[in-house]
Amino acid sequence: MKKINVGIIGLGTIGTGVYKILKERRASIKDKYNLDINIKKCCDISLSSKRKLKIKTDVFTKDFKEVVQAKDIDIVVELIGGTNIAYTISKEALKNKKHLVTANKALLAHKGKELRKISAVNKVNIGYEASVGGGIPIISSIKDSLLINKITSFCGILNGTCNYILTLMSNGIDFSKALGMAQKEGFAEADPTLDINGKDTAHKVSVLCQTCFNLNLDMKDIYTQGIKEVTSYDIEIAKNLGYEIKLLGISRIKKNKLDARVHPTLIPQNNPLSNVENEFNAVLVNSKNLGPFMAYGYGAGMLPTASAVVSDLIRVSRAGNLYETDKDEIKIDVIKFENIKSRFYIRMMIKDEPGNLGKVTSILGKYKINIDKAIQNNKNLKLKAIPVIIMTKSLELKVLNKAILAIKKNKLIQNESLVIPVEDFA
Amino acid sequence: MKKINVGIIGLGTIGTGVYKILKERRASIKDKYNLDINIKKCCDISLSSKRKLKIKTDVFTKDFKEVVQAKDIDIVVELIGGTNIAYTISKEALKNKKHLVTANKALLAHKGKELRKISAVNKVNIGYEASVGGGIPIISSIKDSLLINKITSFCGILNGTCNYILTLMSNGIDFSKALGMAQKEGFAEADPTLDINGKDTAHKVSVLCQTCFNLNLDMKDIYTQGIKEVTSYDIEIAKNLGYEIKLLGISRIKKNKLDARVHPTLIPQNNPLSNVENEFNAVLVNSKNLGPFMAYGYGAGMLPTASAVVSDLIRVSRAGNLYETDKDEIKIDVIKFENIKSRFYIRMMIKDEPGNLGKVTSILGKYKINIDKAIQNNKNLKLKAIPVIIMTKSLELKVLNKAILAIKKNKLIQNESLVIPVEDFA
Repeated sequence: MKKINVGIIGLGTIGTGVYKILKERRASIKDKYNLDINIKKCCDISLSSKRKLKIKTDVFTKDFKEVVQAKDIDIVVELIGGTNIAYTISKEALKNKKHLVTANKALLAHKGKELRKISAVNKVNIGYEASVGGGIPIISSIKDSLLINKITSFCGILNGTCNYILTLMSNGIDFSKALGMAQKEGFAEADPTLDINGKDTAHKVSVLCQTCFNLNLDMKDIYTQGIKEVTSYDIEIAKNLGYEIKLLGISRIKKNKLDARVHPTLIPQNNPLSNVENEFNAVLVNSKNLGPFMAYGYGAGMLPTASAVVSDLIRVSRAGNLYETDKDEIKIDVIKFENIKSRFYIRMMIKDEPGNLGKVTSILGKYKINIDKAIQNNKNLKLKAIPVIIMTKSLELKVLNKAILAIKKNKLIQNESLVIPVEDFA
Repeated sequence: MKKINVGIIGLGTIGTGVYKILKERRASIKDKYNLDINIKKCCDISLSSKRKLKIKTDVFTKDFKEVVQAKDIDIVVELIGGTNIAYTISKEALKNKKHLVTANKALLAHKGKELRKISAVNKVNIGYEASVGGGIPIISSIKDSLLINKITSFCGILNGTCNYILTLMSNGIDFSKALGMAQKEGFAEADPTLDINGKDTAHKVSVLCQTCFNLNLDMKDIYTQGIKEVTSYDIEIAKNLGYEIKLLGISRIKKNKLDARVHPTLIPQNNPLSNVENEFNAVLVNSKNLGPFMAYGYGAGMLPTASAVVSDLIRVSRAGNLYETDKDEIKIDVIKFENIKSRFYIRMMIKDEPGNLGKVTSILGKYKINIDKAIQNNKNLKLKAIPVIIMTKSLELKVLNKAILAIKKNKLIQNESLVIPVEDFA
C-alpha cells in the first residue's frame, strides 16, 4: 500500500473539513483506494484549530516553511486563500517537488499560468477540484472525460451566495433583506463584496477557461457584472415570461473568438440550470460528440469542499507523474462585452408623463431595435416613474447602449436601466 | 509517450463511434493525455463496417480470438452486447491479462461479480463508464470522487427511450403514438421491450449498486415496473399537482437494508431530475459530506457513448495497475417492494354508479389509509368508469395492495389500477 504524507496549510473552514474527513475516512480510503493518506503537518497562524481538532504538537506548526520544505511531505494542501502568502506557499511547494492541492480560485485565476509552468518543470501535479463548484467533481470530469472532445462552451451557476440570494428574491424578498438572511444562514460572508459583485464567479470562469480551453485570461478580459441591480420585481416578471434570472459565468469559443463573461442572465425555465436553487451550484459544459453535460451539487460549505480536496489528494497520489505538460498557449481574440450579440431584457423606469413610452419605443425603432415584448406595469403607483420591461430580439449590445443613452438624454427615464442578456442555449 | 494497442470487438453503432473518435482525436489525445492509442484490431461478424470505415484487411478480423489472444493488445473493447459471446470474450480477455472496456450493462448486471474476480486475479482493469448514462462521466465521478464519502442512495433517469416517450406523453400524446415517434427519431429500437419494461434501467441499477455499495444483486432483487401502464392523463394530473412522472432507478441503504427498484415515479417539479427531458439521462447520488450530486447528459447515442468508452481507454491506460481489488462482499438484506413505505399516486377507474367513490374511500379508511388528495374527473364521458386519482400519505405498500384488492372484490373498479410511489427526496 502506497503511503502519502500530506501537509495542510490553513485550518479555516475547509482545512478543518479536510482534517476531519482524512481522520474519519482513513481506513475506508485505504480499503477503497489502496492508499494510506497520513497528515504529517498542519499549519495555521492561530492555535484555535489545533486545540479544537486536538492536533498533536509535533504535527502542528505556525511556520509554513516547515511544510513546504519538509523532505517527507509528498503533497502540500494550500487552504489559506488570497493571492499573497498563498502564492509564495504554492510556488515554494512546487519548486520543492511537492504536489499542490488548492481550493484557491483567485490564486489560479491570477497565477495559474505561472504555477502550471513551475509544476511542469518540477514534474509535480496541481489539483484544484475544490476551486470551482465546491464538492462537484467538475474539474476531474472535464479533464478525464470531456477533454477527449472539443469543448465549445460552458456556463455555470458558480456562486452559492448569489444563487441563495436570488432564490430568496424569487419569493418576493428584496435584495438587502435576502443578503441579511443569507448571512444569518451562513451562506454569505460578513463582507460579501467578492460574491455579490461577480468577481468570485469571474475567478471561476478563469479557472474553467484554463481547464476547458487551455487559455489564460487577464481578469479584465472577463466582463463582470454582479447581482446588486437585479430586483425581485425583475425576477417576478422574468418568471411570468418563462425565465429564471441566475448569475451565470459563461464562456464560449465561436469563430475562433473567445467570449467570457459574468452577469445576471435570463434562462428558460426548461433549461436544467433553471432548477438550480438555493446554495447549489451547477456547471453545464458543451462539447462535440458528448453534447451538453451538467454537474450539480453543493458549491460551497466545509464538508463538500473538503471532500473535493480529498478527492484531489487521491487523484494526485494515484496519478504518478501525470504532471501538467507545459503546453503552448493558444492565442485567441477576446470579444468585448459591448460586441456580444444576444437577446436582452431591459427594465427602464419611464417618467410617468403622457407619451413617454411612445417616445422610448420610437427611439429604439430609430436604432432598428426589434422589440419582442414590452410590458408596462402601473401597479407601483407611489413611484414617479413606471417600470417598463422590454425584451429585444437579437442585436449587438453596443447598439442597444447607444439607444438607451439617447433615451436618457431625452430625459425620458429615471435611474439606471437594467440590461441583461437572455441565453437560450440554442 | 505511452503507446496503447486496442482491440475493438463489435462494430455496431457504438463501435463505429469509438473507431471514429479514436481516428479523429488521436493527435489531440496524444497532446492532452500523453498517450498514443492505436487501433490494433477490429472484429465484427459482418463486413459492412469494415467497408464503411475503410478498415485495412490486416486490422480487421471476424474471429474474436484473434483479439483476445493477441499478444500485442493491451485493452479489449467489448461492444457486441448481450450476455453470451460477450461473456466469453470478456472472460478470455481478462484471463489473457488484457484490460476490458465495455458498455454492456446486461453483462455487468449478470456477471459483474465474476468478471471483477477474474480481473483482480489477473491484475487488470474493467472500465464500464459507458454502461450507465451513456456519455455522462458518472461511474468515474463516483469511483474517483464520491466514494471517498459514504454513499447512501442514488436515483436516476437511466433510460433515454422511456424518458423520450414520457416527455412526448407529457404533451398529450398517447403511449403507442409516442413509441412510434421515438422509433422514427431513432430514440427507440425496433424491439423496445427491454427499455419499456424497465429491465434496461434495472441492469443499470445493478451496475450502480456494484459501484456505489460494492453489492452484487440478483436481478430478481430489483423490483422492476415499466412505463406501459402510465397514461398521458396521469402525467397531466401529476403536473397539476406539482409533479412530473419519470421512470426512475432507485436504490438506498437505510438501517442496513437495501432498497433497489425501478418504476415510474412522481417527483416534485423543483427537483433537478424533473427538468430532465427527451432523450437525456441524469443520475443523482447522495453521500455523506458531499450531499446530493447530479450529473446530466446524453444517455445514449453513438458519439456520446463512444466518448465514454474512449474516456475509459484513457483512464485504464493511465491507471497503471489499479485493478479492482477482490473485496469481501457486503452482506445485506434486501427490502421487498411490497414492504416499502412511501406516499403513493393511485389512479383507479371507478364504475360510474352513485355512491361508488364513497365506498372506495371507506374501504381505504378501513385499512387506515390516509388520503392526502382525491380528484375525480368526469370529463371522459364516453367511459363507463371514471378515473379517480388518490394521493396517499406515507404507508406500507402491502397495506395499500390489500385495500385495492378489497375494492376490486367489491366490483367497484374496472381494469387494473395504477399505483406508483411519490418520491420527495426529503
